Amino acid sequence: MTERKAAVLVAGSWGTALASVLADNGYDVALWTRNEAQADEINTRRTNGRYLKDAELPANIAATTDMAQAVGGAELVLFVAPSAAMRDVAKQAAPHLRGDAVVAHATKGFESGTFKRMTTVLAEELKTDVGRLVVLSGPSHAEEVVRRLPTTVVVASASLDAAEFVQDAFITPHFRVYTNRDVVGVEVAGAIKNIIALGAGLSDGLGFGDNAKAALLTRGLAEISRLGIAMGANPLTFAGLAGVGDLVVTCTSRHSRNWRAGAMLAEGTSLDDVLSRMGMVVEGVRTTSVAREIAQQYGVEMPITEQLFQVLFARKPARDAVETLMGRGRTHETEESAGI
Amino acid sequence: MTERKAAVLVAGSWGTALASVLADNGYDVALWTRNEAQADEINTRRTNGRYLKDAELPANIAATTDMAQAVGGAELVLFVAPSAAMRDVAKQAAPHLRGDAVVAHATKGFESGTFKRMTTVLAEELKTDVGRLVVLSGPSHAEEVVRRLPTTVVVASASLDAAEFVQDAFITPHFRVYTNRDVVGVEVAGAIKNIIALGAGLSDGLGFGDNAKAALLTRGLAEISRLGIAMGANPLTFAGLAGVGDLVVTCTSRHSRNWRAGAMLAEGTSLDDVLSRMGMVVEGVRTTSVAREIAQQYGVEMPITEQLFQVLFARKPARDAVETLMGRGRTHETEESAGI
Repeated sequence: MTERKAAVLVAGSWGTALASVLADNGYDVALWTRNEAQADEINTRRTNGRYLKDAELPANIAATTDMAQAVGGAELVLFVAPSAAMRDVAKQAAPHLRGDAVVAHATKGFESGTFKRMTTVLAEELKTDVGRLVVLSGPSHAEEVVRRLPTTVVVASASLDAAEFVQDAFITPHFRVYTNRDVVGVEVAGAIKNIIALGAGLSDGLGFGDNAKAALLTRGLAEISRLGIAMGANPLTFAGLAGVGDLVVTCTSRHSRNWRAGAMLAEGTSLDDVLSRMGMVVEGVRTTSVAREIAQQYGVEMPITEQLFQVLFARKPARDAVETLMGRGRTHETEESAGI
Repeated sequence: MTERKAAVLVAGSWGTALASVLADNGYDVALWTRNEAQADEINTRRTNGRYLKDAELPANIAATTDMAQAVGGAELVLFVAPSAAMRDVAKQAAPHLRGDAVVAHATKGFESGTFKRMTTVLAEELKTDVGRLVVLSGPSHAEEVVRRLPTTVVVASASLDAAEFVQDAFITPHFRVYTNRDVVGVEVAGAIKNIIALGAGLSDGLGFGDNAKAALLTRGLAEISRLGIAMGANPLTFAGLAGVGDLVVTCTSRHSRNWRAGAMLAEGTSLDDVLSRMGMVVEGVRTTSVAREIAQQYGVEMPITEQLFQVLFARKPARDAVETLMGRGRTHETEESAGI
């Protein structure tokens, strides 16, 4: 075992799972959380029950609420804060970062209001070169990662050095890591996929079949790609783990909040009722408005997103939305996905 | 209703479902079969029970065993014979085809032995210009199509005129048709996807999770794309309905023979026992050898296909095959899928 130190902020399910992978790889991992009781539970019982039930965490993870202690001396700092909290967490971490620390994040979503990508937020708050930042994404339920079931992810950075550093830090016999240069594509794909999960719930709720769901996933991927390309992404990223891979995991899991919200909407429940019944944030709902706004800004056509928006916010019946989608003019498949 | 005539050969589940779509669109459809009893059942009871249970077929489908009667006068001839029978069916149809008939097919697979694509086989037997031929493919369980559940497919042809003719013939409010110029890509994607379904069954049989299956699907798509690109396909086709879309439907359906065969292999059952217990053809088994042979011919690396081949034909334990895949050298995601 080396004595290399990594910091992971914060201790949600995905942060804790990624901390376990680093620990499996010999890192001493400081896992930062705001919650004292959670830190105690991780340090004394080696569990993070609220997020990962009874999974036993490796001994070389030390949870802490002290940011200086968490981040100080770490050669690798991984941000996994919710998108809404990222700027604040980065601001707190900034003064304590080693000058040569490699900084990565594994958070999906844009910043509210500004629609900024997470690497942009991090670069602003850490006063660091955005080209050195790394994003980690891919099809990965945290519960399966802590159980050491086979998982693959992609790490993207404009700097191949930085990407390969993160690749080496995470690669294990159960966790395969690919590198990619396309930060924009990986971040956009991860941020927007929840819309399609919402649509998948809607489709199942309407009693449609596998054909409809596969179409939604594929055509959804095409419109996410179009938006990504307009924002500067590489089209091929969307055919990779952060694109197709993550979309498949998200859309085929019936446990996702997005899927359940979609299914309730299909039954005619109003958005307000859906949200109050679920009692928590449904990421896909917020993302639908955000993606629609960004699409308008870039002049990109996103028919599925537009119809979901109509169902969510203009009380359009879900069945009518599907009819609108099926009834659009004839189109040429690859020209569209090439963004031509 | 017009009096436009189309012919569909043969009356399996997919041929019958596509005949129903043409009939819904006002075509008089001749549905050719070798089986007199099946033709009688279709004409008198309006069902095709062996393939589509109790689904009621439209009145303007007429089944026949007479090839001249089926194909004569048809402006559109659609071949949906199994890949192994395609050459023979085309040979029988050739003398009766109208000179200006548009010819399409919706068959997945290569010809045994020659590894030829279906449009190549059709062009040879019909003595027609391969550039005018059309292939129809996409995520489409036949059972859902006859129930008029929303379905999307792609029709590809080097001739946009021919593709648009077929698009117009099939497009309905429930059946959305996209055009594409990439015949090679659409045929290769459809022919090879069964390998990945076999792998998905293997993964589930080993007790792996959603992460592993999404990885298999995504990396499987990457290697199918590499082979397709080497054969002349457009990379973007694999991100479309005939690629991702069809793969999602195939890999998430637990009813497929390929999936079941994979699950049995994972439990340690030998290939011979699997095949004898299933009592019918498992397309993915044959396709694995075919794809491996074509890949060697084109000098393309297909690691998943190779490992499946080892499990199927060299008795490599499935778990060892997964370890080999997870332990390969570090790779760069988009360079690989771009075939660089």
